[in-house]
Amino acid sequence: MTFDFGWKSFEDSSQRMNESHLQTAIQAARAGAVELMSRRSSFVVSEKAPKDLVTDADLASQKAIRDLLEDAYPDYAFVGEEEGENDPPDAVRRGDTDAPPCWVVDPLDGTVNYVHRLQSFAVSIGLYAAGKMRLGVVYDPVAEEMFAAVDGQGATVNGRPMKASDCDDLSQALVACSFPAGVKKDAPEVTRFVHVLERCRSLRRLGSCALNMCYVADGRLDAYWATNVSAWDSAAGTVIAREAGATLTAYDGSKMDDWKPRFCVAGTASVHGSIVDLLSIA
Amino acid sequence: MTFDFGWKSFEDSSQRMNESHLQTAIQAARAGAVELMSRRSSFVVSEKAPKDLVTDADLASQKAIRDLLEDAYPDYAFVGEEEGENDPPDAVRRGDTDAPPCWVVDPLDGTVNYVHRLQSFAVSIGLYAAGKMRLGVVYDPVAEEMFAAVDGQGATVNGRPMKASDCDDLSQALVACSFPAGVKKDAPEVTRFVHVLERCRSLRRLGSCALNMCYVADGRLDAYWATNVSAWDSAAGTVIAREAGATLTAYDGSKMDDWKPRFCVAGTASVHGSIVDLLSIA
Repeated sequence: MTFDFGWKSFEDSSQRMNESHLQTAIQAARAGAVELMSRRSSFVVSEKAPKDLVTDADLASQKAIRDLLEDAYPDYAFVGEEEGENDPPDAVRRGDTDAPPCWVVDPLDGTVNYVHRLQSFAVSIGLYAAGKMRLGVVYDPVAEEMFAAVDGQGATVNGRPMKASDCDDLSQALVACSFPAGVKKDAPEVTRFVHVLERCRSLRRLGSCALNMCYVADGRLDAYWATNVSAWDSAAGTVIAREAGATLTAYDGSKMDDWKPRFCVAGTASVHGSIVDLLSIA
Repeated sequence: MTFDFGWKSFEDSSQRMNESHLQTAIQAARAGAVELMSRRSSFVVSEKAPKDLVTDADLASQKAIRDLLEDAYPDYAFVGEEEGENDPPDAVRRGDTDAPPCWVVDPLDGTVNYVHRLQSFAVSIGLYAAGKMRLGVVYDPVAEEMFAAVDGQGATVNGRPMKASDCDDLSQALVACSFPAGVKKDAPEVTRFVHVLERCRSLRRLGSCALNMCYVADGRLDAYWATNVSAWDSAAGTVIAREAGATLTAYDGSKMDDWKPRFCVAGTASVHGSIVDLLSIA
């Protein structure tokens, strides 16, 4: 099977085609969020690994999203955070010309926040095609914010265009970071945290990779880095931040690997460069 | 002048009296929030000290709140974060029997978040009388959450009663902390952060002391500590967390000083004790 309707060269695909993918992703994100919100006060927690919470809500959200995406695009590949679907088909990863487009879904980004009834969790849906993340939708059902972007067409929140921060001085920057639960005091993650902490205005840990990337896109954060997240956490946010004008690379300044995301994103190249320099010390 | 209408022994004061203070504080918090929200996208930033942002919104919010409180209770003392009103009258601090009740107001808690258009900022209004914080109101105008508590009468959010978390194991706990901007890597604040980080499920830095205390009250956070905040940051939250059943002491386990708040608050005595032990290592 080949996908010859413009996806090989997404830039050439019709506006109608993009719009249809975007509307499907938005509909799926809302469907996932309905499952999350309906279970928010009464979820059943099971632990597959210490400090790695998985909930009924997680699974129900993923099923609602997957059903909707597969119904609309039955031949597309699917990557999600549930077991057995963590890796994209080899053809997708290699960017083969006949590889199918691939949805990359986190049905509940910010699980720990969600389980504790704290705000800042989201549904995240990205679409990878022809060697690149092409479309991203992140929905925060508590704040009722729908972040969306399509390759080359800008990024929006609830329809309003977003632009990343123009802050070009790290000492004035509000920065966020993610690192793993249970990290030890001599871990490089802690060293990196402390290095940036000394230099920025303030350093947040909010608990949702997807939302942190959207906040960088909207200039609410000046920068964000993560060294422990998975492809589904960052997929949609990658497109949203990039389309809002943010600078995004691997955390050491090299090209970011969409399938092994260890990255730094910032509103300006200046703040991005300052943080990448500090992260490389660890 | 003496205040002999029940404030000397607040426990004996009438329900009507408490209700009238509470409604005034709620009205004042909303009035402050109106000023914050109307300026949110167009504030003028001035810096009185590096990394200590003060905005027009801050000042406008405080004026709206103070006008309303002074109009309703002209003889009460007032402590706020603006210059010249940082300290309570000596009689208030000493808890003299003829000391006036004292409003303790933060017109904008979470200034850095606010300035960056990030969520998680609030108006905080506490009332100190007869040697104790007696009433607290914290309003988050983005989430539209009004947290309120009166001594001995429980704590609510938007009218719903709150109860602190029953998590009694630090390794399962979602914890938040505050420490100053620009802290250096060998500072005790960083050591304390790392000690707790190793042991808890996850450690957040959200940027608003008042909201962190309310989240502990509502069980969204299992614990929170701060070693750098001011009386007006914690005043209202103190009452709200205590009335929701949380354990609250100075961060070293001794009695908390309301006027020099360096404290640890947790849903259970067990998690509280674990954190106090870890904080004392630094």
